[in-house]
Amino acid sequence: MALIVQKYGGTSVANPERIKAVVSRVAKYKRDGHDVVVVVSAMSGETNKLISLAEEMMPHPDNRELDVIVSSGEQVTSGLTALGLINEGFKAKSYAGHQIKIKTDKAYSKARILKIDDEKIHDDLKNDYVVVVAGFQGVDNDGNITTLGRGGSDTTAVALAAALKADECQIYTDVDGIYTTDPRVVADARKLKSITFEEMLELASLGSKVLQTRSVECAGKFKVKLRVLSSFETDGEGTIITFEEDEKMENPVISGIAFNRDEAEVNILGVPDTPGIAYQILGPVADANIDVDMIIQNIGQDGATDFTFTVHKRDLKKTLDILNNQVKDHIKAREILSDENIAKLSIVGVGMRSHAGVASKMFRTLSEEGINISTISTSEIKISIILEEKALDAAVKSLHKAFELDKNISI
Amino acid sequence: MALIVQKYGGTSVANPERIKAVVSRVAKYKRDGHDVVVVVSAMSGETNKLISLAEEMMPHPDNRELDVIVSSGEQVTSGLTALGLINEGFKAKSYAGHQIKIKTDKAYSKARILKIDDEKIHDDLKNDYVVVVAGFQGVDNDGNITTLGRGGSDTTAVALAAALKADECQIYTDVDGIYTTDPRVVADARKLKSITFEEMLELASLGSKVLQTRSVECAGKFKVKLRVLSSFETDGEGTIITFEEDEKMENPVISGIAFNRDEAEVNILGVPDTPGIAYQILGPVADANIDVDMIIQNIGQDGATDFTFTVHKRDLKKTLDILNNQVKDHIKAREILSDENIAKLSIVGVGMRSHAGVASKMFRTLSEEGINISTISTSEIKISIILEEKALDAAVKSLHKAFELDKNISI
Repeated sequence: MALIVQKYGGTSVANPERIKAVVSRVAKYKRDGHDVVVVVSAMSGETNKLISLAEEMMPHPDNRELDVIVSSGEQVTSGLTALGLINEGFKAKSYAGHQIKIKTDKAYSKARILKIDDEKIHDDLKNDYVVVVAGFQGVDNDGNITTLGRGGSDTTAVALAAALKADECQIYTDVDGIYTTDPRVVADARKLKSITFEEMLELASLGSKVLQTRSVECAGKFKVKLRVLSSFETDGEGTIITFEEDEKMENPVISGIAFNRDEAEVNILGVPDTPGIAYQILGPVADANIDVDMIIQNIGQDGATDFTFTVHKRDLKKTLDILNNQVKDHIKAREILSDENIAKLSIVGVGMRSHAGVASKMFRTLSEEGINISTISTSEIKISIILEEKALDAAVKSLHKAFELDKNISI
Repeated sequence: MALIVQKYGGTSVANPERIKAVVSRVAKYKRDGHDVVVVVSAMSGETNKLISLAEEMMPHPDNRELDVIVSSGEQVTSGLTALGLINEGFKAKSYAGHQIKIKTDKAYSKARILKIDDEKIHDDLKNDYVVVVAGFQGVDNDGNITTLGRGGSDTTAVALAAALKADECQIYTDVDGIYTTDPRVVADARKLKSITFEEMLELASLGSKVLQTRSVECAGKFKVKLRVLSSFETDGEGTIITFEEDEKMENPVISGIAFNRDEAEVNILGVPDTPGIAYQILGPVADANIDVDMIIQNIGQDGATDFTFTVHKRDLKKTLDILNNQVKDHIKAREILSDENIAKLSIVGVGMRSHAGVASKMFRTLSEEGINISTISTSEIKISIILEEKALDAAVKSLHKAFELDKNISI
């Protein structure tokens, strides 16, 4: 008998019929003698509908009120899922974030979980209840409703699994696992049986869209066993996210290719190359709760350097406002540029550590395709580049082939 | 400078455009220097949509989960209204029931307010906020979400007005006041400038559908000045509900005619005429949280009597189940009958107290129309009858004319 936390995304709870399929799956686990905690997202389309309503009232909605509005979506699904379970003869109870005290900080729309009160849930599980939790939401110390940002239900599930010391956290989604790259771009993309946390972290943050980065970080930190599965298949093992590299029987040089069309590039040119300059640029951006992804600074010439970073396209205007009003004159920068027609591509793999020549193979492949690279940034298990958005598909296809990701072999 | 609680019903907040009209009205009061607390219902149609979803999951939804689901509607409207106010440059903050601790009992779907924590709201008002409260919902001592039943937002508004000691509680709806009867049935129906609490109570409970009975009871109990207005008119005084009869310049014999097609009649025949019999019949019905309206018992003959009461049509099946399974044999009743094709009609007026002959005039008028009365029940300021549903319209029209309700005169 195990304790399993299952998270179902928006397409898995899109309508009563789909929710009934979720109920059947939960029922199967219950009949097998397991305890189940279910975390649900809003019905697909619901969050966007609510955001549109909010934007009709106020073009850039106040974040406190936006959280009040959008968090209602998960509340509805949690109630509907509990009803479905009760209708099948199970004991079930739904909880919103404020009821099990998913305590967060005050960063509306991007809140971080601080603490979960697991007592109520443990009591319910002891009394044979299936506990259904509204994902994506929490409550701050003053009782204000907060949300965890897009994909936050994954984080709710992992944080609950950690707090409850669950045996496994299963993330049900509309894909059946983690692929070597997006199958819509590369037809040969292959499903991975396992992947390490480190690789998953790099892949998730780079846009694989299957799992929210924070949920993977959280799972890694609290050693939560995480599995990604399809809610549209009745069997299937999905992809398991492992702690240790040697759990993997095969260890290819790279595990996957991630890419992202959502970012915009910001270049600050002619910055005095003095200590503390990066903080002076990024501090005000971070204070505005804008997430910065890639950060590149090359060595300076003549006492000046260029500083580049990427932000989500929707944050670009706000970022430029901050840089132009609060930063530019202060740090005596020459010019601030930006480009929205870019894409980011990354190859990721723990095997990279022990294999030389991955970077040169990557750059040779792209060069043979005539694709230009504007920016490069690397970590131990990842190489990321920025390129023109229109060259992205060709780049992903050629690299997937060059690194033989379509073949299930180690190199 | 006054403190005004304004409540807007579902049609007044049906879409962002309508909510903007609400914002304009609130803005007017703020600019005039008043403090405003706004209570909102769900957008019209939303509650029914949510109930349908719940019924798709479970034909007779569990009440705890149903409350979780339907309470989301008001939460959305409260956030949207706050956004609209912020967008117009006001400080505004929304609150769900659990945030300002609208504490209720545990009667899901029919909860009663026990206590409101007014401190948070007073603090916000002091800091010049417009406070927007999600109507219809509360929270029990264990943090479970409860709802107050249909029309519960009126009760939220009145309870808030009482707790905050507001100067006036304005109920905005899609009608511009209280009428002598339903204008859809009688074209000559006339708007009343004022009405007493007693009359309003009788009219509301009898189906005028403008104000929830409990809200009027609560207003009367805590001496809240209550006004019913149209949210679709920019001026108009609406109808004020007064404490004292002599505040009214004119005092017609009857103020209005209410009617109701929603009830079903239950007859328990051949009941032993012994003490405690009414409790033995109605106790189990009340325990099932079924509201009973009219109760009629005539004097018995040969040690047996007949007992009649009415319930909402939707509760009829459940009521009959209870009577047949738990009550009938126990009290040795001969037979239990029911009729759904009935209507209730009531004439109401404080003037009735000092005028003889109201009842006889009523019965004469109906007799001249050839309308048969099956059951009669009276109070000091009201005479209620049950008649065949198909005779209802003719009955209302003839009585409206007979009591000269189309003319603004005292008799």
